[in-house]
Amino acid sequence: MKNILAITMGDPAGIGAEIILKAFSHKDFFEKYKCVIIGEKSVLEFYKNLLKINSPQIVTIQDPDRYEDGKICVIDLNIVKNDFEAGKISSKCGEAAFQYIDYAINLAKNGSVSAIITCPINKEALHLAGHNYPGHTEIFAEKCGVKNFTMLFKVENVSVVHCTTHCSLKDALNLITTEKVKQNITLLDGALKSFGIEKPRIAVAGLNPHAGENGLFGREEIEQINPAVEWAKQNGINASGAFPPDTIFASAFNGNYDGIVAMLHDHGFVALKSRDFEAGVNITIGLPIIRTSVGHGTAFDIAKKGIASEKSLLAAINDADKMAKYRKKL
Amino acid sequence: MKNILAITMGDPAGIGAEIILKAFSHKDFFEKYKCVIIGEKSVLEFYKNLLKINSPQIVTIQDPDRYEDGKICVIDLNIVKNDFEAGKISSKCGEAAFQYIDYAINLAKNGSVSAIITCPINKEALHLAGHNYPGHTEIFAEKCGVKNFTMLFKVENVSVVHCTTHCSLKDALNLITTEKVKQNITLLDGALKSFGIEKPRIAVAGLNPHAGENGLFGREEIEQINPAVEWAKQNGINASGAFPPDTIFASAFNGNYDGIVAMLHDHGFVALKSRDFEAGVNITIGLPIIRTSVGHGTAFDIAKKGIASEKSLLAAINDADKMAKYRKKL
Repeated sequence: MKNILAITMGDPAGIGAEIILKAFSHKDFFEKYKCVIIGEKSVLEFYKNLLKINSPQIVTIQDPDRYEDGKICVIDLNIVKNDFEAGKISSKCGEAAFQYIDYAINLAKNGSVSAIITCPINKEALHLAGHNYPGHTEIFAEKCGVKNFTMLFKVENVSVVHCTTHCSLKDALNLITTEKVKQNITLLDGALKSFGIEKPRIAVAGLNPHAGENGLFGREEIEQINPAVEWAKQNGINASGAFPPDTIFASAFNGNYDGIVAMLHDHGFVALKSRDFEAGVNITIGLPIIRTSVGHGTAFDIAKKGIASEKSLLAAINDADKMAKYRKKL
Repeated sequence: MKNILAITMGDPAGIGAEIILKAFSHKDFFEKYKCVIIGEKSVLEFYKNLLKINSPQIVTIQDPDRYEDGKICVIDLNIVKNDFEAGKISSKCGEAAFQYIDYAINLAKNGSVSAIITCPINKEALHLAGHNYPGHTEIFAEKCGVKNFTMLFKVENVSVVHCTTHCSLKDALNLITTEKVKQNITLLDGALKSFGIEKPRIAVAGLNPHAGENGLFGREEIEQINPAVEWAKQNGINASGAFPPDTIFASAFNGNYDGIVAMLHDHGFVALKSRDFEAGVNITIGLPIIRTSVGHGTAFDIAKKGIASEKSLLAAINDADKMAKYRKKL
């Protein structure tokens, strides 16, 4: 197997096709990666002409084995054809985006590709097409039959998982338990190992300012978080903390840690997005297949402007490629 | 008046002297700024020799009027002399650090200098010397006789004030009121105007993930924060929000806002420190005199290593200089 990666094109009305064309145009792209697109040639051609992107030739292939070097190889599912409008939500585009994903998952499950990188989809379009998933991740989980999964978000060499995400701060306070922190340390440790890091250095961020300043600014660190760190240490995980949230992310970006367990959505995401808004990668942990994703959305507002950045896609491809190669070595 | 700025040397055992020597060694330093040091020549000479810093000549002067171009002019208070150890807490160093500040405040109050930039002090040393202030800011507030003041923290061109800081998250939730948000918007607007920004663009960050997602993840935005933003707009302040914490700081760093009102210590500080750990500047708002400060501490652990960065000090000098020049123009 040649370590071929599948990239799903995402919603045809979004910036997926644009960033794919731009990524493939990087001088050393074909030296580094072998990727096939699950999408449509007509859509890629449309954006290539509209945005005047001087990309490699776009060709259609029947399956990943027919990969041709130096060209943008598309497995063309022929769904929207030319019947879409850049920047506009439609059920047809939602249906197409869903079919690209479904097709890619099957390729990954039967071993025809070694990883999937997803371009953004629009939830509203997906729902209009009758696919009532909250997002990409749940489609993958269902198709792979897994229930215990989580999202890891990565900028530069720092990977972050969150103990709480989409709930009010008031509710989050009650959800942060020793058990929850243990689970997240374990998930992060496993994920970092699957990236090829032998002994991942994990920092656990506190909940309160200064990580509670020895109980002065809150007792969650003492009562819930530190015991989980102690448990992890005793179980052979190189974890430490709880550390003050405001310095630990900076320390990790400085090279001192591989990953951070954050307590709150807006500790992790504020740190990562303030560091680099364009380069974030999402990785779904807990799937039998490898899946990474760009960290941004369909950006319909700039779909015809030609200003979308391919930085996040390139980072997502690079992470998927690294994980796939490491998995082969095992 | 020549827009002369006073830099207090900070605790002699810390990195203050080192970063001063490094800052003055920048090629264009004397073209840009006229600064005098309130500290001690012997301490500066000690670090110059120890760390082999090829700085301009160090001379003592009696008062800021005697400023000499191209030299490091020190008003020498002659307190610790050579009786200190780099990296070690002592009451003598605490006393010296306090006296430098006191002297500088008097110079600023009588108009001999147009702003003060402070290098870091050690709280423990300060207390050993019998000066029981929580920090720099409270010394300035007391000596200036003000009660309504706050800290603004700045990285690049983004200024941040916090509605809550040193308390548990649980307590912070109860402290975020419309009144508190109004106060902070007003303080930030005034501060940004004092930097010379005519119509400051202020973003108010939410408290909950996605700024509450229309009440789904918490109601504080709807009940407490948004009404303060509405009030500000009606009172001629260019404020908007509440915005999702994880994207609004990135947007400000991208040039879309001059300042942000943050609800939590670890929204603002996580964003700023993740963006640039070394370049942060503290500015005390609400004083009759101008005071900026480096964003870091005494760093006793690296006091003899020569690796301290002068980046934050240069940013603090630049901000103080800009504010002082703007104030003169008014």
